[in-house]
Amino acid sequence: MDSSSSSEPRAVCLVSGGMDSAVALAHARAAGFATFALTVAYGQRHVCELDAAARVARALGAREQRVVSVDLRALGGSALTDELAVPKDRAGHEIGRGVPTTYVPARNTVFLAIALGYAEVVGARAIFLGINAIDYSGYPDCRPEFLAAFQKLATLATAAGAERGEPLELHAPLVLLSKREIVLRGRELGVDFALTHSCYDPQLRGERWLSCGRCDACQLRLEGFRAAGLVDPLEYA
Amino acid sequence: MDSSSSSEPRAVCLVSGGMDSAVALAHARAAGFATFALTVAYGQRHVCELDAAARVARALGAREQRVVSVDLRALGGSALTDELAVPKDRAGHEIGRGVPTTYVPARNTVFLAIALGYAEVVGARAIFLGINAIDYSGYPDCRPEFLAAFQKLATLATAAGAERGEPLELHAPLVLLSKREIVLRGRELGVDFALTHSCYDPQLRGERWLSCGRCDACQLRLEGFRAAGLVDPLEYA
Repeated sequence: MDSSSSSEPRAVCLVSGGMDSAVALAHARAAGFATFALTVAYGQRHVCELDAAARVARALGAREQRVVSVDLRALGGSALTDELAVPKDRAGHEIGRGVPTTYVPARNTVFLAIALGYAEVVGARAIFLGINAIDYSGYPDCRPEFLAAFQKLATLATAAGAERGEPLELHAPLVLLSKREIVLRGRELGVDFALTHSCYDPQLRGERWLSCGRCDACQLRLEGFRAAGLVDPLEYA
Repeated sequence: MDSSSSSEPRAVCLVSGGMDSAVALAHARAAGFATFALTVAYGQRHVCELDAAARVARALGAREQRVVSVDLRALGGSALTDELAVPKDRAGHEIGRGVPTTYVPARNTVFLAIALGYAEVVGARAIFLGINAIDYSGYPDCRPEFLAAFQKLATLATAAGAERGEPLELHAPLVLLSKREIVLRGRELGVDFALTHSCYDPQLRGERWLSCGRCDACQLRLEGFRAAGLVDPLEYA
């Protein structure tokens, strides 16, 4: 499905399997980058996220996809990687009130650091990631100030930046968008949302993974589709 | 061997098993920090580095040690993690001439990002690392500008920094030291260099790992001991 040519500038795109990173990947492609998809396996509990990331990378024409494992479980400290229950039906209490319990310490810093390494290897001077306004209301490492600081660091950290002064550009095309706007943008860009996965607590029904419809991620996703006047193509339990 | 009390400030110390990080860990302890040793297993080819890291953390009184695996081999791009030969007997050609081939893309950025996550989990507001003048002559992500940029990023990236404005301090106590000075500093601080490991290409003799004495790491180490007028306690092949 690679539709890129060798003369195009290269971008590393963080692809999680979720809808936001899928839309960010489609953005990079539409902006004329040859895309190199990076999926960081950080101790997610559900292999279906990794499967979704591979499907998304293939469908959206990434030149290649690499999966890098980092065992952030060894650090503990989050409901997403610890063996703790994921908070549910608590949208009114949980979303938008300080740092959520699903926060993985320094997750975006770790992801971007690995993306920086990948960018060096493939000669990319751009990194795309799908963080957005919903995220940065709760997670400190999703805010624009953080992104600006990382871009500065990345330029100093790399051989290309250190030796030839080439800046490394960090693109977060969804950073000011709501979930509703992300859904609409994805539709414009031809993203097949049926390939993506958002649920923190999916359930196996036969051979298919169904989304729970109740965790924060499902609630945000469903609300985004509702607000956009569209139907989420995923199956819910 | 934990000699720290609960009232001491906490520091995460990156401990690789090499002599530099051992001296940095001893520095943190001498400065009054309760130390939390972090070893990043990034696809090193030799388990003896990880063994050395555990020995060093224990001997120098770390409160705990965590080992986090990150598979940087999935990115390729370095003689240290690829299945390539390590450059040898090329000190005159290799050391101090631009970025060495043993450079692992974005390695320090990845290590510091993981250290930042660990610091958040244990409530540390300081990170120690053992990079030094020898390193930053060749590796872009060892330079003081890089460290300053990371400290700024780290403060913005964390919940404590974002919510309560608490800075995260990055300490690189060896940053201006030569290998000779590191050897002398380590001796002052009581570091047992026999516990450390530096060689990129060790050889198994019976049940003991011997250092090759020829790779860049061995040459720098041996030269440091020679210049300090001391004998390296390690066994060489």
